[in-house]
Amino acid sequence: MNRLVGVGVGPGDPELVTVKAVRVMRDADVVLVPVLAGDEPGRAEATVRVYVPADRLRRAVFTMDEGRGTTPRREAAWDAAAAEVLRAFDGGATTVAFATIGDPNVYSTFTYLATTVRTSRPDVAVETVPGITAMQDLSARAGTVLCEGTETLALFPLTAGLDRFGAALQAFDTVVAYKGGRHLPAVLDVLRSAGRLDDAVYGASLGLPGEQVLPAAQVTGPGPYLSTLLVPARRDRRGGKL
Amino acid sequence: MNRLVGVGVGPGDPELVTVKAVRVMRDADVVLVPVLAGDEPGRAEATVRVYVPADRLRRAVFTMDEGRGTTPRREAAWDAAAAEVLRAFDGGATTVAFATIGDPNVYSTFTYLATTVRTSRPDVAVETVPGITAMQDLSARAGTVLCEGTETLALFPLTAGLDRFGAALQAFDTVVAYKGGRHLPAVLDVLRSAGRLDDAVYGASLGLPGEQVLPAAQVTGPGPYLSTLLVPARRDRRGGKL
Repeated sequence: MNRLVGVGVGPGDPELVTVKAVRVMRDADVVLVPVLAGDEPGRAEATVRVYVPADRLRRAVFTMDEGRGTTPRREAAWDAAAAEVLRAFDGGATTVAFATIGDPNVYSTFTYLATTVRTSRPDVAVETVPGITAMQDLSARAGTVLCEGTETLALFPLTAGLDRFGAALQAFDTVVAYKGGRHLPAVLDVLRSAGRLDDAVYGASLGLPGEQVLPAAQVTGPGPYLSTLLVPARRDRRGGKL
Repeated sequence: MNRLVGVGVGPGDPELVTVKAVRVMRDADVVLVPVLAGDEPGRAEATVRVYVPADRLRRAVFTMDEGRGTTPRREAAWDAAAAEVLRAFDGGATTVAFATIGDPNVYSTFTYLATTVRTSRPDVAVETVPGITAMQDLSARAGTVLCEGTETLALFPLTAGLDRFGAALQAFDTVVAYKGGRHLPAVLDVLRSAGRLDDAVYGASLGLPGEQVLPAAQVTGPGPYLSTLLVPARRDRRGGKL
């Protein structure tokens, strides 16, 4: 039976990949790596190249726009990537691994790829191997705890809307926002108004050349699409919730 | 300078640890593993033993109660673990790694340990290495995507209260609840009333003997303290949000 495995390779640092991810990619007949169109580097590829021989790598060009729903351009990219997977199976591969930054079940294009593959080949078994997400990496690099005790955490892409971000700041202890990109200045305004700017940290290109990890208060201007804003719970010195 | 590194070793499967975590633990002079009092097995230890020679392991007994705030019993456990860390430094260790299940920045006792160590030794440098969390492992094992597109995700311990769980079901797309334990039957009632029981999945002892991964609708009775309930966003067949 043909297997398609979505493998999370973490945010960028080649060491932030699991032992299982390495084994699954090494055992796969073909490892497909998404290459992002535009100016983002192919992050997954840099990590995969550390562990997998080049002759088993294949590239699929993906588009990540600022996510206002399903555009024809995105669908075309999934279709092209799915066609690449099916070509690998037709060429004799039993197992195809699809490397994805972060975790394949957290805002990953793998979800759409798997759906597209299954539409034409319902017999393909789909599995995933979890990976470290950007919020976890930023938390470690910034020394800012994500959640402890009875704290609650809200995670969402800023493409879900600034209103929801403001509401989450009210209702949740820790709030993590992905994909700030061009919305970042407006987001920081909301944070400032809520009195939550001071402890917040910002990260981009984590584990990669040009890495940015800094207090959100020092951020100026828009950021890249793949950026992370971590607004921690208000805590006392002992580490408890206020 | 003395370093204390909180190392996430994932939810239980020894392969779900990062390459960096393995390196940091192997390079450390002492690796401290928490052993939970009561009937929970020492999960971190089982994973650590795969990678680190036994003569560099030391145990610290930790208590995890159902978390109604900071009890003297808990504080005593942190103090004992912190004393173990300081003993290692006094014995000549430069780097002490503290292995923790999941991620050291996500509901981990490492947070409290680090605070306690720093109180008596402000000169100790504290770092963390992220690890795979139970929600990510459950998502992969159950084949249930955590979040995609513009979906929002809420994460919290049920010790934060059933009211907040119900509110999160209204306001967020995907809701993940940890530490259901004895509250589980009441939680499932809330899920059923909200019409969200059908797609929800439940997991306990992930990657360990006695692993449970099943539809939440099939869960009967209370669960262990370390359990995970994943209520996915309502999605259409294409994988999009409804």
